Amino acid sequence: MAKEKKDSGKTIVLVSGGMDSCVTAAIAAARGGELALVHVNYGQRTEARELASFKRLADFYAVKERLIADVRYLAAIGGSALTDAGIKIPTVAERTEGVQPTYVPFRNTHLIAIAVSWAEVIGATKILIGIVEEDAAGYPDCRRSYLAAMNEVVRLGTRPETEIEVEAPLVGMTKTEIVRRGAELGAPFELTWSCYRQEEVPCGDCLSCELRRKAFAEAGVEDPIRGKKVKGKK
Amino acid sequence: MAKEKKDSGKTIVLVSGGMDSCVTAAIAAARGGELALVHVNYGQRTEARELASFKRLADFYAVKERLIADVRYLAAIGGSALTDAGIKIPTVAERTEGVQPTYVPFRNTHLIAIAVSWAEVIGATKILIGIVEEDAAGYPDCRRSYLAAMNEVVRLGTRPETEIEVEAPLVGMTKTEIVRRGAELGAPFELTWSCYRQEEVPCGDCLSCELRRKAFAEAGVEDPIRGKKVKGKK
Repeated sequence: MAKEKKDSGKTIVLVSGGMDSCVTAAIAAARGGELALVHVNYGQRTEARELASFKRLADFYAVKERLIADVRYLAAIGGSALTDAGIKIPTVAERTEGVQPTYVPFRNTHLIAIAVSWAEVIGATKILIGIVEEDAAGYPDCRRSYLAAMNEVVRLGTRPETEIEVEAPLVGMTKTEIVRRGAELGAPFELTWSCYRQEEVPCGDCLSCELRRKAFAEAGVEDPIRGKKVKGKK
Repeated sequence: MAKEKKDSGKTIVLVSGGMDSCVTAAIAAARGGELALVHVNYGQRTEARELASFKRLADFYAVKERLIADVRYLAAIGGSALTDAGIKIPTVAERTEGVQPTYVPFRNTHLIAIAVSWAEVIGATKILIGIVEEDAAGYPDCRRSYLAAMNEVVRLGTRPETEIEVEAPLVGMTKTEIVRRGAELGAPFELTWSCYRQEEVPCGDCLSCELRRKAFAEAGVEDPIRGKKVKGKK
């Protein structure tokens, strides 16, 4: 039998191991079809913990096709508090206007490029990424306009017979809506990791911990991984 | 003194070590301004030889800022004769219509993304890449339309204060014109490597060797690295 072009509606999900990518995977799983998960290690401080979350999420959704890609050159390039120990990760109180020090220059283009190359080879037609436009003030590559431009690059830069669409199902949601949607879909929040700083217990006061705490509180959902108690917060 | 935003007209050149990237570096050098060179290892068969060419070219142009980025996950993803020993590299006679087996899926987006992340950190305003539209039948990510779309992604996906333009000065040239331009600029062709197959002596009959041979012959320039004699060819 001739080898047919795979077009089974296979979906690749970019999974960091955080809350947003967990809910993105839950959305993809709910749609049915085959899932393939990719995790990217870019030399971030909490990579070991994020990778463990990725593996647990892939097991949870019984995903066979997995790719772990190493882009540690991003840490060598530097310029971000997530990869450079010389740049401080700000607390919520220290947050300033504009692009955040935790911005990794042009990171999402690397992530999407990896998923697109893989999609061409395994015959996936859809790529899901958990970017959120609410974050866009801090991260220019989380905007709808960025994503539309990236889809044009994907259309022009791949084989003519390839049909790959990059979609961000959470892009217009608030963090609270993301928690609610995840809870509805039975997303395994207990397997995720959000803290920018630590790998054992969430620090509780980096921006990522704070956004997570507020989102669960506002959604009325109990967070199965509670960080250490932060002064004045339950 | 306050740290000023670097805007000295610094240019990053993507240098594989082949003929096209050598001429691209020569063009950047002729324009003046500071140069920074980046080489990407994607697990291709002739990587050791290409890396040596990169280093010699960087020495030739006395470039201090160098980046070597490892994207060997592209070899793990596979799908190309350049990275997968199970896929044969065709000879010229075996060349078929359409996208070539040596196409590495979506490769140029990875290369450009690396240069853009680095440009944001070192304050470069220009990125030069040696893609050639003549190759576009075989490689979708060598077209002007692809490059225009990629520049839109760069504009939207980086910090608002960042001005980075990706330019392909050879895009409209034939291989013969590239050799002529390089010869005019004193490009060190003796340091370059083009063969897809081997690292000691060019095989002489892969597509890359053949295109190089024809280009030097038509340009009336002697190639300082001559491959083994191929039947019926001088």
